[in-house]
Amino acid sequence: MIPRYARPDMVAIWEPATKFRIWYEIEAHACDAMADLGVIPRANADAVWKAKDVEFDVARIDEIEAVTKHDVIAFLTHLAEHIGSEDARFVHQGMTSSDVLDTTLNIQLVRAADILLADLDGLLAALKRRAMEHKDTVRIGRSHGIHAEPTTMGLTFARFYAEMDRNRNRLETARYEIATGAISGAVGTFANIDPRVEEHVCEKLGLRPEPISTQVIPRDRHAMFFATLGVIASSIENIATEIRHMQRTEVLEAEEFFSAGQKGSSAMPHKRNPVLTENLTGLARLVRSSVTPALENVALWHERDISHSSVERGIAPDATIHLDFALARLTGVVDKLVIYPETMLANLHKFRGLVMSQRVLLALTQAGTSREDAYRLVQRNAMKVWEEGKDFREELLADEEVRAALSEDEINEKFDLGYHTKHVDTIFARVFGTD
Amino acid sequence: MIPRYARPDMVAIWEPATKFRIWYEIEAHACDAMADLGVIPRANADAVWKAKDVEFDVARIDEIEAVTKHDVIAFLTHLAEHIGSEDARFVHQGMTSSDVLDTTLNIQLVRAADILLADLDGLLAALKRRAMEHKDTVRIGRSHGIHAEPTTMGLTFARFYAEMDRNRNRLETARYEIATGAISGAVGTFANIDPRVEEHVCEKLGLRPEPISTQVIPRDRHAMFFATLGVIASSIENIATEIRHMQRTEVLEAEEFFSAGQKGSSAMPHKRNPVLTENLTGLARLVRSSVTPALENVALWHERDISHSSVERGIAPDATIHLDFALARLTGVVDKLVIYPETMLANLHKFRGLVMSQRVLLALTQAGTSREDAYRLVQRNAMKVWEEGKDFREELLADEEVRAALSEDEINEKFDLGYHTKHVDTIFARVFGTD
Amino acid sequence: MIPRYARPDMVAIWEPATKFRIWYEIEAHACDAMADLGVIPRANADAVWKAKDVEFDVARIDEIEAVTKHDVIAFLTHLAEHIGSEDARFVHQGMTSSDVLDTTLNIQLVRAADILLADLDGLLAALKRRAMEHKDTVRIGRSHGIHAEPTTMGLTFARFYAEMDRNRNRLETARYEIATGAISGAVGTFANIDPRVEEHVCEKLGLRPEPISTQVIPRDRHAMFFATLGVIASSIENIATEIRHMQRTEVLEAEEFFSAGQKGSSAMPHKRNPVLTENLTGLARLVRSSVTPALENVALWHERDISHSSVERGIAPDATIHLDFALARLTGVVDKLVIYPETMLANLHKFRGLVMSQRVLLALTQAGTSREDAYRLVQRNAMKVWEEGKDFREELLADEEVRAALSEDEINEKFDLGYHTKHVDTIFARVFGTD
Amino acid sequence: MIPRYARPDMVAIWEPATKFRIWYEIEAHACDAMADLGVIPRANADAVWKAKDVEFDVARIDEIEAVTKHDVIAFLTHLAEHIGSEDARFVHQGMTSSDVLDTTLNIQLVRAADILLADLDGLLAALKRRAMEHKDTVRIGRSHGIHAEPTTMGLTFARFYAEMDRNRNRLETARYEIATGAISGAVGTFANIDPRVEEHVCEKLGLRPEPISTQVIPRDRHAMFFATLGVIASSIENIATEIRHMQRTEVLEAEEFFSAGQKGSSAMPHKRNPVLTENLTGLARLVRSSVTPALENVALWHERDISHSSVERGIAPDATIHLDFALARLTGVVDKLVIYPETMLANLHKFRGLVMSQRVLLALTQAGTSREDAYRLVQRNAMKVWEEGKDFREELLADEEVRAALSEDEINEKFDLGYHTKHVDTIFARVFGTD
Repeated sequence: MIPRYARPDMVAIWEPATKFRIWYEIEAHACDAMADLGVIPRANADAVWKAKDVEFDVARIDEIEAVTKHDVIAFLTHLAEHIGSEDARFVHQGMTSSDVLDTTLNIQLVRAADILLADLDGLLAALKRRAMEHKDTVRIGRSHGIHAEPTTMGLTFARFYAEMDRNRNRLETARYEIATGAISGAVGTFANIDPRVEEHVCEKLGLRPEPISTQVIPRDRHAMFFATLGVIASSIENIATEIRHMQRTEVLEAEEFFSAGQKGSSAMPHKRNPVLTENLTGLARLVRSSVTPALENVALWHERDISHSSVERGIAPDATIHLDFALARLTGVVDKLVIYPETMLANLHKFRGLVMSQRVLLALTQAGTSREDAYRLVQRNAMKVWEEGKDFREELLADEEVRAALSEDEINEKFDLGYHTKHVDTIFARVFGTD
Repeated sequence: MIPRYARPDMVAIWEPATKFRIWYEIEAHACDAMADLGVIPRANADAVWKAKDVEFDVARIDEIEAVTKHDVIAFLTHLAEHIGSEDARFVHQGMTSSDVLDTTLNIQLVRAADILLADLDGLLAALKRRAMEHKDTVRIGRSHGIHAEPTTMGLTFARFYAEMDRNRNRLETARYEIATGAISGAVGTFANIDPRVEEHVCEKLGLRPEPISTQVIPRDRHAMFFATLGVIASSIENIATEIRHMQRTEVLEAEEFFSAGQKGSSAMPHKRNPVLTENLTGLARLVRSSVTPALENVALWHERDISHSSVERGIAPDATIHLDFALARLTGVVDKLVIYPETMLANLHKFRGLVMSQRVLLALTQAGTSREDAYRLVQRNAMKVWEEGKDFREELLADEEVRAALSEDEINEKFDLGYHTKHVDTIFARVFGTD
Repeated sequence: MIPRYARPDMVAIWEPATKFRIWYEIEAHACDAMADLGVIPRANADAVWKAKDVEFDVARIDEIEAVTKHDVIAFLTHLAEHIGSEDARFVHQGMTSSDVLDTTLNIQLVRAADILLADLDGLLAALKRRAMEHKDTVRIGRSHGIHAEPTTMGLTFARFYAEMDRNRNRLETARYEIATGAISGAVGTFANIDPRVEEHVCEKLGLRPEPISTQVIPRDRHAMFFATLGVIASSIENIATEIRHMQRTEVLEAEEFFSAGQKGSSAMPHKRNPVLTENLTGLARLVRSSVTPALENVALWHERDISHSSVERGIAPDATIHLDFALARLTGVVDKLVIYPETMLANLHKFRGLVMSQRVLLALTQAGTSREDAYRLVQRNAMKVWEEGKDFREELLADEEVRAALSEDEINEKFDLGYHTKHVDTIFARVFGTD
Repeated sequence: MIPRYARPDMVAIWEPATKFRIWYEIEAHACDAMADLGVIPRANADAVWKAKDVEFDVARIDEIEAVTKHDVIAFLTHLAEHIGSEDARFVHQGMTSSDVLDTTLNIQLVRAADILLADLDGLLAALKRRAMEHKDTVRIGRSHGIHAEPTTMGLTFARFYAEMDRNRNRLETARYEIATGAISGAVGTFANIDPRVEEHVCEKLGLRPEPISTQVIPRDRHAMFFATLGVIASSIENIATEIRHMQRTEVLEAEEFFSAGQKGSSAMPHKRNPVLTENLTGLARLVRSSVTPALENVALWHERDISHSSVERGIAPDATIHLDFALARLTGVVDKLVIYPETMLANLHKFRGLVMSQRVLLALTQAGTSREDAYRLVQRNAMKVWEEGKDFREELLADEEVRAALSEDEINEKFDLGYHTKHVDTIFARVFGTD
């Protein structure tokens, strides 16, 4: 985890104190369930709750672990220091460490997903606001980096909205998938613990019981979770790439907000660099790098091996923390993006009408010209614009063969920008609904 | 695509003939919609259907493409050779090549998903059958490759069933996600084509209209699709790894079916190698390798760049074809897996009762022994089994300190295998439902 | 392997006929060595060479394999059909299939590396030629997509040359690493075959004996090989990205060569899209996708498992064939790239002198102005250029505070482009040497 | 970076204090060179060295950066606080931030490589020692997890030695590749700084000047560096996998050293889990996950974009720190691995002589039996061992058809283990040399 790309709420989820708190709750709820089932005395279960408001001493637990070399035993020993070893004797009974560890990891991932969902909501709101604001701001659409046909800046924001909305759905699904817990014992048979303990703990902690676990919760769930984060990261890169392109000197249709104090470059004061979106591009690579190890974690040996653990100690905090930061940063970028509609128009007209060639081609075809002839006619006039800087409309008007097929009005009509924006409302209704 | 890991139905989806057939249907349906909207003459739309039963000549289209260097134009030229260039003049009107290409790709992915879903159904049926068959076949559960507690072979199959069932759900979602089409023109504005054409074509072809496209359908959809295939592949590796472990000489709890003619190794006739599951392990790596490029494909420049295309020409057929093959192969392996219950029992008893130590530990604690003392008592008897080959139960019975806490009956009861299988029905009901 | 991204020489390496030919040579040389050692009769070794000019019948071998389910046995059976089963009886004696398969794979990779090295030579020649041609063609250097300071097109080509030259060295190293063979028997102990057989075969086939093998040649060698291909692919993406940027409409400093017959887009005849470099970007992703599975192939079980095999059946031909194609395509692109020096100058002057701000800043500092003051002075004049379209030099000349530090001549000198190109020769000498 | 998988020396390389120290040295050496060239006053260059023994105040620099939003400016401001702003005015003159940042990163990577090389030396020593110790410890070699032919534990260690020795060479090469520095200005033209400054700084810091840089050092160097770490990580996984297999209950040919205090599992005291090698398997995945983002970092826009930076802030410390830890952990595991030669022999004899079938097959062929007949004879006796638990040698001795080809002595000789170890010395000489 890179501290400069981290925000406190997400970081808190992965702190030892949070982990121990969740461990405690699992153990306490499990004791409750066992007491209800008559497996352990009610009094002992109640006693565990004495530690309800304790902030566990992470340093002390580490100290014990240095001796026992086992984290859960260290925690249980420390818990006993709080509630008394007599009262503590039934804690964790019939359970295996992974019951606690795996259920905890999933709770952390669920909480992380909740933050990420809120992040996405913030980003969606920003994208929607900017989409509405620039619904009719015309700019040139580009394929292959080459001018194609006019579109609007609002459509650009709207498609990022739609993409991030899909990501929100995906993350909801991933959150649902990961929201399971397991208290099923050493190999998942419930040999030493009643399945109803699992049901009770899961219910209390907002999880579903894992239908069938081994010593661990199956890692295909986690693989899907991180794969989903990887897709979201790739969408962040998609938006970042668009903005980086818009800000490049020759395009300059938009700029990241540039605060007064910011020096840009140590030597070139005029440079306003899209450093936030470049940074997001890199963060996307980082988040994405968690996908492959998560996939490699699925195939564990028999009822479990612990190879997944070190991987998850890395990718679980890293991917969620960096993605949280990236979504928040992107939201700020989108929210404050400085947009230059005049430059958009100037860019659109750079090749004096040439972007309308598709319409002219179509008009010629519709007027009865063969596809091949229409292509030839458009091409020959287009080349004059391209090579000699002529105006496309004027060339067409002066081309007798074109004029034999199309009237002056018909030609002029082809250069109306409104033609290209007439379905923007339809598309917006598809994306944002109608209300 | 590696021919030896390919099956004809999936291969057929990716053949040029299939592609051209879908292109044709898109164009023909688009003409219908345009005729309905009065954009083109009805007669021309009808004329396109004259080619309904034509098998397009792939070689001829390639020949034309060699000249035009444009695949869709080549196809349209060839189509005109069938229906006449006069009748063909309105075909593709207002559309852009990607309208056809991207909609086609999604149709192919949807069809591929349908085959994969059927594959998963087959695998699920095999896993369920074997789970039921071996519901009560006791074997030792292992964590870290080390004997832990008894479980059953049926539970092993059942957890693979549950995992593959989750994969089925994921693939359903991925299929739904990818089932969109776009007929929206050069930059997605519908400038030259009515959105109702897109709606008609999609409806006819079993797709939903892409709410907002650019020149292309957004690639986050495809990224999610391939990420899902990557998770399924990882689950295949998971099952394959289990079987490879079971077949290794020292374990030998199961073997891949060994046909009579198979020679195994050129020099060691007695060797029965788990080559199918080893092969599946490799295929899983191959399928998984499509995930990262699919994620890298999401960030296209502006309204599109074509960098994704060469990637998809590789990964779309490769990942679906190899996954189809792998699922079918795995189904065969599961279906015919030779299982040795006697060896399972022999392995379970390898360390003469030691696997019951968890139960004894628990019993001691419940009988009032402190956690630390119980641990010490179990450990000292366990060590005699481990180091001197003693019988764990006999040692416990002879240990006075143990006997002070537990009676002979109580100790004997700890070695009852039924104790470990008592919740198998509960777990099976969770996985397979109750009927 | 995607046929359209394949060239015949590289494809030939991976054809069954080539493989069988190499198998034959390994077996024949091994027989020679065994005869020299007196292990088999000289006559039998000689007899094997009777098949020296035979083109093995791939279909026949496949037919036999369908029965034996073992490829090497199938080949040996077929070989016996040529030289007679009596003479063939000592062929492969004491060897294991992997002796043949692994040595063959390495020979194929060595041959593939030789083609790729030749490809790199071609690319280096093209890069060098274009570097020399445009050594002094001034263009603006950009960081963050933003104009920074002048550089030359020749330097751009020179740095790609230097990068590809490093790649050539890396590939030489990778080729050396992979040029080993193993004829060491079932677990690498030479139990049934003398190490001198391995030495002889390797010497005849241009390989070094693998110092210690198991049943297979260790896969870290292959991992390094594919990782190297991945780095080369990434460099291809680097060059492709530069060209795609140069060709985008607003920049237009260069264009991929556009042949007469090429139609560009089905609807926009004026569009010249950088489709080759976009394609190369995608191919880079594809080649790179072989790296992770190659790394996953390293950890085989004990003396071998066969999981690597299916992976290599995919990535070995795919990565080498696509990389060969990509290098050749890139060479063509570089060779024929249409460069527009006038546009380069026009772009450089887009912000009327602003790109010289770094020099002015430095001059002010050297003239005794504090870093902070110099920064402020440059910034305030730069903003007028940026926001009001003023000319930077004129603003500086009119700024009294600036003029207090710098004379007119001193200011004018800062706008001399020669200042920025004065070390081009030095850099070229570093890259290309001095001759 | 995961603290529990980190060691202090490697961590120190990546601490801010180290980074600032290197920045300082670069700036100070650059001032020296500039003074030598007469570009800045000698006195100012000398003054910079006044801070030679200063420990820079990281918190203070962070404080300044919070205002300037530029790390290098923040450092320079802080440096001026130490040496006086008057004396500091020529520091960094003509340089760009990346001159400092990129040269520093490479110095850090070189230092990291030096630690890793030392780690590898330690590992190689341990592997060699264990190889010598167990040169003649016979165990069964396995392919596909199935018993094949005898080998020795020494050969296993020796092949890991050879693999890690190759990795050492690769890392040397990677270290050499990354040992470059660049002080070449905003776009690499040396416009504002003499190339001799770069040469001086590099010489003083043990680097080579980057022959041609842009604003940054080309990222193919870093890609190759991380790819090399990825290969080393995969080799770690290879060794870890072997040990995990050896420790599994049914094999038990070796165990990770088990310290007295270690509790193993909270509930199963007898379990000695190969947790260190499982952990190494996971760490290998983590280290490997840096390869793809490093490859994605190669294609920067024009003379640089900063997308690589956030990636490197993650992968540079993470991959080197975790790999350092993993190599050290693996060295400890190898060094203290508890090996059970008796179990090795017992395992080898599990199928009563069957592992000698290859030899028998060969002997029959050499005695004149046809390949097909020999195969049949071996197979029929092998099956009796396999299915009925017979002794292979006894069956052969009793098989008349076998006896027609081989005498009693000849058959007995086939079961001599020395036959399989006769070339161990030869292989050891290849791996370790002869001295």
